Amino acid sequence: MALLNESYLELAGSYLFSEIARRIERFKQEKPDAELIRLGIGDVTQPLAGAVLEAMKQAVDELGVQETFRGYGPEQGYDFLIRQIIAHDFLSRGVPIAEDEVFVSDGAKCDTGNFQELFAQGNIVAVSDPVYPVYADSNVMAGRGRNIRLMPCTEETGMKPQLPKERVDIIYLCFPNNPTGVTLSKEELKQWVDYARENRALILFDAAYEAFIQDDQAPHSIFEIEGAREVAVEFRSFSKTAGFTGVRCAYTIVPKDVQVYDAAGQAHALNPFWLRRQTTKFNGVSYPVQAAAAAVFSPAGQQQIQATIAYYLENARIIREGLIAAGYRVFGGVNAPYIWLKTPHGMPSWDFFDQLMQQAQVVGTPGAGFGAHGEGYFRLTAFGTRENTTRALERIKNM
Amino acid sequence: MALLNESYLELAGSYLFSEIARRIERFKQEKPDAELIRLGIGDVTQPLAGAVLEAMKQAVDELGVQETFRGYGPEQGYDFLIRQIIAHDFLSRGVPIAEDEVFVSDGAKCDTGNFQELFAQGNIVAVSDPVYPVYADSNVMAGRGRNIRLMPCTEETGMKPQLPKERVDIIYLCFPNNPTGVTLSKEELKQWVDYARENRALILFDAAYEAFIQDDQAPHSIFEIEGAREVAVEFRSFSKTAGFTGVRCAYTIVPKDVQVYDAAGQAHALNPFWLRRQTTKFNGVSYPVQAAAAAVFSPAGQQQIQATIAYYLENARIIREGLIAAGYRVFGGVNAPYIWLKTPHGMPSWDFFDQLMQQAQVVGTPGAGFGAHGEGYFRLTAFGTRENTTRALERIKNM
Repeated sequence: MALLNESYLELAGSYLFSEIARRIERFKQEKPDAELIRLGIGDVTQPLAGAVLEAMKQAVDELGVQETFRGYGPEQGYDFLIRQIIAHDFLSRGVPIAEDEVFVSDGAKCDTGNFQELFAQGNIVAVSDPVYPVYADSNVMAGRGRNIRLMPCTEETGMKPQLPKERVDIIYLCFPNNPTGVTLSKEELKQWVDYARENRALILFDAAYEAFIQDDQAPHSIFEIEGAREVAVEFRSFSKTAGFTGVRCAYTIVPKDVQVYDAAGQAHALNPFWLRRQTTKFNGVSYPVQAAAAAVFSPAGQQQIQATIAYYLENARIIREGLIAAGYRVFGGVNAPYIWLKTPHGMPSWDFFDQLMQQAQVVGTPGAGFGAHGEGYFRLTAFGTRENTTRALERIKNM
Repeated sequence: MALLNESYLELAGSYLFSEIARRIERFKQEKPDAELIRLGIGDVTQPLAGAVLEAMKQAVDELGVQETFRGYGPEQGYDFLIRQIIAHDFLSRGVPIAEDEVFVSDGAKCDTGNFQELFAQGNIVAVSDPVYPVYADSNVMAGRGRNIRLMPCTEETGMKPQLPKERVDIIYLCFPNNPTGVTLSKEELKQWVDYARENRALILFDAAYEAFIQDDQAPHSIFEIEGAREVAVEFRSFSKTAGFTGVRCAYTIVPKDVQVYDAAGQAHALNPFWLRRQTTKFNGVSYPVQAAAAAVFSPAGQQQIQATIAYYLENARIIREGLIAAGYRVFGGVNAPYIWLKTPHGMPSWDFFDQLMQQAQVVGTPGAGFGAHGEGYFRLTAFGTRENTTRALERIKNM
């Protein structure tokens, strides 16, 4: 008799975006002529860079010719992409990374979801609250539901998690943060690295939004922090950096210095286990997609993606300053594409969702969807078009 | 302290292809002028179909224009591809499949590796011996190492697994088979479906090579068998069907009739759990890749991929008939791109590997790499070029 993994029954329903869709649908039936502006889901809207398009099409053409056809590539990614990643994303910031520490994948969601497979079920797992749901959900699926410790991020803590007072073994951090948009200074991030070194804990650092950092002092990579190579894994993505949400490419850095422990306390290097996981259960990223990702690092590609990032950051500024002018308390939106606002008078976040949709025809994401400490907050994203963003803020100001 | 999933320590080393590479390297150093012909790894060599290239490039162009840009797609795949899959791969054979029973992914390796996540650790898992290693390895990683039951495939059983005599809960079947190249008749496959229905077991059916079936009577899908919708999941791939090993697209069918059970014996539909797994840990396949896969089903795409499959099948015929003429005992190579040969005089398969490389400069895959019952056998693939395949067989005949 085929027995279910009953941990799946513990999962909360995939409620957030389906409930948003349900409310939008009802609203449209009531007001068919209303022009809704969607600043809810964190998906990009600007087209791919020209250099990326050209590289991808050229790679497709290569697959049409016997002499240049490529079949299976290395599961870890092609050298031509890995070398660009190391040079542009790490060496340029003084961080040496070896080629066999880079694992190219089809998404940071996949990597952050799959990485917990490498660990024993008994690990205590710390995640922020509010938080991107994948970290917790993937651990619930693996039977660690009761081992999850929430780290509240509140106005008092500047929306940042505090060092745990009880034992934790694996810590998910995401900076610049989704959903709050805040980032950590080097000094703040160093406290986490020091904590992990003292407690032989592991930090799973999601840096999917690092391209939006404007503050020269803020770290783009956790490996800018001394000692992080011993205790951290970093997830990066081309999704928001280069508009690849529909193209699918990301990568994960697993330094060879990171150690994990067996039940007898014996240390093991982590890197070979992720290699084994990926070579067993993954077959590498599409060759044209990897060629497209490599073109992101070309001079033309860099110029084009920086222009798009500047475009989204200007949207973020418009949202942030517009909200402040309208009297809202606001977090994020400076080094991140997300703006986290406090609802007026402690209004529940789903009520604010309805009010915003009814009175301003603007759709955002209720903070409660990201965890209990997201209640009373609301997320807007900077990934819309300029026109829609400007119109949305005018409507909010006139509410 | 971050604790390792110690099941990873139980995994046998990823030995097969690295050992083959090591022996090839040594041979090349000894005989730098020898022209090796590789009929070992199961990777395709023929370029993509023109219709596929055009569709993929057009999709890339769409991503370069604001009005046609696409970001995140549905994790389960785009409707335009799912409808083509249903019409061409199932309805055409009289098998109705609903759109929400199809899950598009980036590879059958990923899907066959990940699917076991949905099941409790205590399930008894049956795999053939010899076998594609992912089924067993992914279960070892999940802590089911001691729950794996091997089903020997021997000359006496026609290289086919026999119905288990002890309890098993989850059964991996692959037909046409990798590595033996044999397939099952409808009557034979029906025995497995009946077994699963009687025992409330689940069949995970890997049909990655179905496009190579020539025998009109052989089933392409397990869902051609009465009752299979209650007890089977099917994995399909564009890798060998359309040369997508470097492009990455596959799909999995999870019928809504399939039930699994909790510890109390309560039945649950399986389909929503795979949907939840994929929406939580996967972000969909690259849009240009899905557009390319849909073009496989166009009239021009079908004509072009059928020509390539016929090319590989002619290679298979050349290998099969050449080996028989040279006195070998041979399996497969008729409805499959793999030819499974018995080594002469019971020679160990690694010794035959060395002999073939030394005397014929041909590289194949030792059967022992696929399991203990692969010892004494050897796999050749039909995915080479015609010229190399013909030359390889001439050399083998002259050995």
